[in-house]
Amino acid sequence: MSNTYSNLKTATLDQVRLAIRSGQYRSHTAGLGQGYLQSNLAIMPQEYALDFMRFCQRNPKPCPVTGVSDTGNPMMFTMGRDIDIRTDVPAYNVYRSGRLDHDCTDISDIWSDDLVVFALGCSFTFEHALMRAGFSMWHIDHDLTVPMFRSNIDTVPAGPFRGKMVVSMRAIPTERVPEAIEISGQFPLAHGAPVHWGDPADIGVHAIDRPDWGDAVPVPPGHTPVFWACGVTPQVAIEAAQLPICITHKPGHMLITDIPENAQSPILCRGDNQS
Amino acid sequence: MSNTYSNLKTATLDQVRLAIRSGQYRSHTAGLGQGYLQSNLAIMPQEYALDFMRFCQRNPKPCPVTGVSDTGNPMMFTMGRDIDIRTDVPAYNVYRSGRLDHDCTDISDIWSDDLVVFALGCSFTFEHALMRAGFSMWHIDHDLTVPMFRSNIDTVPAGPFRGKMVVSMRAIPTERVPEAIEISGQFPLAHGAPVHWGDPADIGVHAIDRPDWGDAVPVPPGHTPVFWACGVTPQVAIEAAQLPICITHKPGHMLITDIPENAQSPILCRGDNQS
Repeated sequence: MSNTYSNLKTATLDQVRLAIRSGQYRSHTAGLGQGYLQSNLAIMPQEYALDFMRFCQRNPKPCPVTGVSDTGNPMMFTMGRDIDIRTDVPAYNVYRSGRLDHDCTDISDIWSDDLVVFALGCSFTFEHALMRAGFSMWHIDHDLTVPMFRSNIDTVPAGPFRGKMVVSMRAIPTERVPEAIEISGQFPLAHGAPVHWGDPADIGVHAIDRPDWGDAVPVPPGHTPVFWACGVTPQVAIEAAQLPICITHKPGHMLITDIPENAQSPILCRGDNQS
Repeated sequence: MSNTYSNLKTATLDQVRLAIRSGQYRSHTAGLGQGYLQSNLAIMPQEYALDFMRFCQRNPKPCPVTGVSDTGNPMMFTMGRDIDIRTDVPAYNVYRSGRLDHDCTDISDIWSDDLVVFALGCSFTFEHALMRAGFSMWHIDHDLTVPMFRSNIDTVPAGPFRGKMVVSMRAIPTERVPEAIEISGQFPLAHGAPVHWGDPADIGVHAIDRPDWGDAVPVPPGHTPVFWACGVTPQVAIEAAQLPICITHKPGHMLITDIPENAQSPILCRGDNQS
């Protein structure tokens, strides 16, 4: 990261996007574009898009759709005035036949006319709301990645997309669990209320200190492990589907949109005149 | 309606569905299956389904998707244990090339392997919530249809689907408008908060006593006309798209599902174990 971009956390949305687009900023997006909706990404051939959209509709907690492109159009016009999905994400993972092929910071060379882009809500939104309410996020305070676990909860399949739900865990002071449920429940486009709290074994998590993805975090005395549906769920479903090609964001390296984080719906150009 | 079904308002969900399935009940569903989610219906060839789903994602207030079938599968398994969409709606409208061709009470004879069923949330859900809070619904009290207007609000297009937003109007005591907004806003899958309140001309409605669909209702002194996004919007977009075939419910004759009206998400078989 060059000195020019060392103060990106206080930069405007346009400055952040330009730094990412130019390839000069290639790191994670936590804390960037504060107040604006960030999204996970899944790009796939149109042939699979209807089934994937059905998978998301049937599994709204792990897969909240925030935007869908027109086929072959890289401009995400419902989410920003000038978002080119080929360049405006800091880093991408390219999968071929369900396996990670390579990562990159620009997908212009592999973009094609039959691709459809899906943007999916991410946990940043409800984490910000929890922090505003005075909840501390241990993984953020320690610059780590939230711990994620493959649960025993089945998703509802659609076409080739299926698999167990992946969940992320945050330790919440036990007496404040109802408050955490209530606050996160206000953000259905960011995984909403948790899917489980209490004994991890109830959802098939048998080693809370050995996450399947991310970093282990402590569950201090007086705290309850609380599990939210996680955006890695669609990635697992996509891997299982073995699509010939699929492009995702690199974990933590999200799409930053022009949509305010507290928007009622994630559509920039919708017609409402009073909200 | 035979005597056997004269008490359908107090019948169980299974009894209601059986009466509809057998063709013995063919009337509107207002007040039936109380406490359960009812949905609008749009059935179309798979070729158009991805664009229609994009149209719904981009216009979530008029087009809240509550269910999508697998292609060619008439069983709406995410919305009920035994819902056969070919028989379980009291009456259907069949459109060909964008024009109403005929209505019927069973679509088994025109069902085909390439059809996709969309269920879309309807206003019954938030009307019930408003009535529980003591708001009176003039059109319901007088056994009329809510007045609907073609507004000047553009929808966000997707493929062949486009057009103005249709809105429904309810007169709300002016001092209780904020409360009506707050209550209906809790039901994003039933059109959510209103899109406009106050001067109808602001959204291109110039004759509040001459609705484009439904019946005129008074706006008494001390009341404000409040406009919600309406499920006729996708029907207008579908007509504009001139699909070779499209089947909808006959207005007021909804699909009654097994989903509780206050469910967080409209998925019967989702994996959550604690909600």
